[in-house]
Amino acid sequence: MNLTERDKKHLWHPLTQHELHPNHLAIAKAKGASLFDENGKEYIDGIASWYTCMYGHCNSYIIEKVQEQMTNLDQIVFAGFTHEPAIKMSEDLMSILPKNQAKIFFSDNGSTTVDIAIKMALQFHFNQGEKKNRFIALEDAFHGDTFGAMSVSGLDVYNGPFSDFLLQIDRIPVPTKENFEEVKEKFLEIISSGKVAGFIFEPLVQGAAAMKMYDKELLDALILIAKENNVLAIADEVMTGFGKTGKYFASDYLENKPDIMCLSKSLTGGIVPMGLTTCSQEIYDAFLSKEISKGLFHGHTYSANPLACTAVSASVSLLKSEEMQNNIQRVSEKHQEFANKIAKHSLVKTTRQLGVIVALDMDVDMSRYGKLRYQLFDFFMENGAFLRPLGNTIYILAPFVITDEQLEKLYSVIEKGLDFIQKAQKQ
Amino acid sequence: MNLTERDKKHLWHPLTQHELHPNHLAIAKAKGASLFDENGKEYIDGIASWYTCMYGHCNSYIIEKVQEQMTNLDQIVFAGFTHEPAIKMSEDLMSILPKNQAKIFFSDNGSTTVDIAIKMALQFHFNQGEKKNRFIALEDAFHGDTFGAMSVSGLDVYNGPFSDFLLQIDRIPVPTKENFEEVKEKFLEIISSGKVAGFIFEPLVQGAAAMKMYDKELLDALILIAKENNVLAIADEVMTGFGKTGKYFASDYLENKPDIMCLSKSLTGGIVPMGLTTCSQEIYDAFLSKEISKGLFHGHTYSANPLACTAVSASVSLLKSEEMQNNIQRVSEKHQEFANKIAKHSLVKTTRQLGVIVALDMDVDMSRYGKLRYQLFDFFMENGAFLRPLGNTIYILAPFVITDEQLEKLYSVIEKGLDFIQKAQKQ
Repeated sequence: MNLTERDKKHLWHPLTQHELHPNHLAIAKAKGASLFDENGKEYIDGIASWYTCMYGHCNSYIIEKVQEQMTNLDQIVFAGFTHEPAIKMSEDLMSILPKNQAKIFFSDNGSTTVDIAIKMALQFHFNQGEKKNRFIALEDAFHGDTFGAMSVSGLDVYNGPFSDFLLQIDRIPVPTKENFEEVKEKFLEIISSGKVAGFIFEPLVQGAAAMKMYDKELLDALILIAKENNVLAIADEVMTGFGKTGKYFASDYLENKPDIMCLSKSLTGGIVPMGLTTCSQEIYDAFLSKEISKGLFHGHTYSANPLACTAVSASVSLLKSEEMQNNIQRVSEKHQEFANKIAKHSLVKTTRQLGVIVALDMDVDMSRYGKLRYQLFDFFMENGAFLRPLGNTIYILAPFVITDEQLEKLYSVIEKGLDFIQKAQKQ
Repeated sequence: MNLTERDKKHLWHPLTQHELHPNHLAIAKAKGASLFDENGKEYIDGIASWYTCMYGHCNSYIIEKVQEQMTNLDQIVFAGFTHEPAIKMSEDLMSILPKNQAKIFFSDNGSTTVDIAIKMALQFHFNQGEKKNRFIALEDAFHGDTFGAMSVSGLDVYNGPFSDFLLQIDRIPVPTKENFEEVKEKFLEIISSGKVAGFIFEPLVQGAAAMKMYDKELLDALILIAKENNVLAIADEVMTGFGKTGKYFASDYLENKPDIMCLSKSLTGGIVPMGLTTCSQEIYDAFLSKEISKGLFHGHTYSANPLACTAVSASVSLLKSEEMQNNIQRVSEKHQEFANKIAKHSLVKTTRQLGVIVALDMDVDMSRYGKLRYQLFDFFMENGAFLRPLGNTIYILAPFVITDEQLEKLYSVIEKGLDFIQKAQKQ
C-alpha cells in the first residue's frame, strides 16, 4: 500500500472535508524552498509551509543548534525553574521586538497565544477592579481555532457549529480611506460602553482573509483611540511577524505600539511548534500582588521547551543577519516588479505587495472551497508550485531564501494559472 | 548576572505569582531521572517534568530518531499533504490504543486536545441536526487553560476572572461507593434534558486534583449510561496515558471505551510538544459529507509536525518494549510497598497507588498555594528531590527508568519531609 492509501486509515487532516478530498500527497523531503514527493518530484514551497520555514526547510544552522540542545536538556517544568535557552531566547527576542514589549508568556501555537492575550486583557482590568467583558475585532479576521481565538475570528466557515459558545465580540470593518470616518465612529461608540477590554487585529495584513492589506495610518489612529480609552491593543503577528512585511514586525510600521503581541509560526524557523504572548511592563505589573490569585494561572506543560527556545534564538540570529535582510530586500523588489507586470493581465483585478508577501485578486467568482479553486491548486502542483489560492486570491509568501530562479518559476506558473482559469471559464 | 537574575528581566512563568515567587532555579542538564542545576547539584525528577519524560530525559533512542528526521523533512502543511512519520505514528498508536479508536486529529498541547474534543462532540450532534450545547464534567477536574478546556475544568483558582466567558457545564461529584446512587441520579437528570453533547473525565486518576483516584466500575457505569443516551464519552488521558496507570491507557481498565480520547504530555516522550484527539469511526463518519461545512474546520499550523511524529513512534516503541514494561512493573511494586509502609506514619491520613503513581494525603491543613506548601517544596529540593506537593498531597510520578536507588531516595526524602512538617506545625 502506498503512503496516500495508508494515510486514509487513521489520519484526520485539518481543514479538510475527507469525503470530497480523500487523497493526500506524501511529501518525503524538504530543503530550502523545495519540497519533494515520494517519487522525487519537486515543488517550490510558495507559502513556506504556512509561513513557518522562512529561513528554508531543514536549515542547517537551526538544526545544528537544536540537535546540540537535545542531548543536554530536553524538557523541564517552567514553573519554579528556568534555563539558559529560555533566557537567551528572551534576550534575543527583546533585541528585535518593539521597545515597549517587556515580558514573554509561553504556549504552543497561534491559537493559544490569542486565548492567552484575551485572558491577559480580561484579567488586566479585573485585577484593577474593572469588569470589562467585550472585545473589538476586525471583520474577516482569523485568529485561530480554540474557543477564545474562534470568538475573535470572523470567518464564518470555521465557527458555524460553535457560534453559541463564543465570547461577546463587536466587529468593525477593515478601515479604508473611504470608510474611515464611519469605522471610527462605530469604534468610538462601542468603546463608549466602558466594557471593552481589548482591540485585536492582524496589523497591516489579514492572512486568512486572503492577504487583505490596509493602511498603517488608519490602524494607528484606531490604536491611539484605544489607548486613550484604556482599551488594550492586541497585535496578532502570528502570520505577519519576523520579517515578512519587510520589517521585523508589522507593528514596526506603527507609531502607536500594541500592548500585547501574539507570535508563532516562523518564531522557531518552522522546526517545532511554539507560541508566545508578549506584553508591556504595565500589563505584567497589573498581575503582581501579594494575592496569589492575581497571577496569571495559565500554564502549558511544554512552556519554554528548551528545543523550541533554541530554535527561536537560532532563527532570530538568522533574521538579523545581513544575508537574510538582503534576501528580504531582494524578494520584496522582485515581488514589486511582478505585481506591476501581472496587474496588466486581463484576469487580474487588483494586486498588492508588502515585504515578501505578494497577492493578486482574479476577476472571477471563485469560492473558498469551490471546485475551480481546487482545479487551480492542482494545476499549480502539476507545474511544480505549492500555492494555495484563497477564494479568488493567488498569493506568494515563500521562504526568504527562495532563489531568483525559483521566484521566476512561481511567477511564470501563476501567469499560466491565470490563462488556465480563463480557458476553464470559457468552456 | 547569573541565570536566575537574567530570567527576571523578560520571562513570565506559568502558574506563578511573581511578586511572591520571583526566583527561578536554573536547570542546566537532564539525563534519565536526574536534573542538574547550574552548580551541578542533582535533583531526582519525581514528577517526570509534568509527566512527560517517562522514558528518561534526553533518551538516546528518541534523540537519534528525531535528529535523523530533522535533516530530512522538518515541517509541511498537513492539509492536502501527508508524510511517512505521521502515517507510521498513526499505525504505531493504533497498536496500543483501545480497539474502538480509529482516527487521529492533531494539535500541540493538552488544552487544545480538549478544545478539539469539545468541538468534535458539538459538531457530531450538529451535523445530525441535533443542537446539544451542554457538557457534564467531574468536580475538581482539570482539563486545561484555553477557553473550552477551562470551561470543563472545575478548579476555581484557574478560572476566577474568566467565569463569565465559559461554556455551560453541569458538574457531578467524583463517584464513590458511598455517593454513587446520588451521582447516578444527578447524571441521569442532567442527561434527561436531551441537551448533553458529551461527558468528559480523567479516567481513574484526576491529576491536578492531587492524584485523586476513583473506581473503574463506577466510571464504567456512568459511561454506559452516557452511551445509552447518545452522550459522547470523552476520556482526557493527557496525564494518565502511556503506561502510567500500569496499562497503556487508563481506559484499558474500562469495559465501556470512550468515544473520544485526548493525548499529550508523554506522547512524544517529553522532547517536543504535541497533542492528539482520537475518536471512533462513528464520530469521524458523522463529519463526512458532500457539504464542505460538515468537515471539522480546525487546523493548527504545526499539525503532524514530522519531528514530533517521529518522537511519538520512538516513544511507543520504547513503551511496548519488555524493558520498559518491566520498569513499570518494578516501580509499581516498589510504590505499593512504600504506600503500605508510609501509611503508618502519624502524619499520613491516606495513601493511594495505581501503576507508577503513588500519593499520600497529610493530615494537615496545607493550602494549594500557601506558605507551608512552598516550605515543603524547598525542603524537598534542598534534599535533592523535585516533588510538587498539591495541597496536602505528596505524590511521585517519576520516569519509568528511575533506578531503585533513586526511588529509595525519594521515599526517604518524603519521610523526612513529613517529619519536617510535623516539626513546623509544633512551632
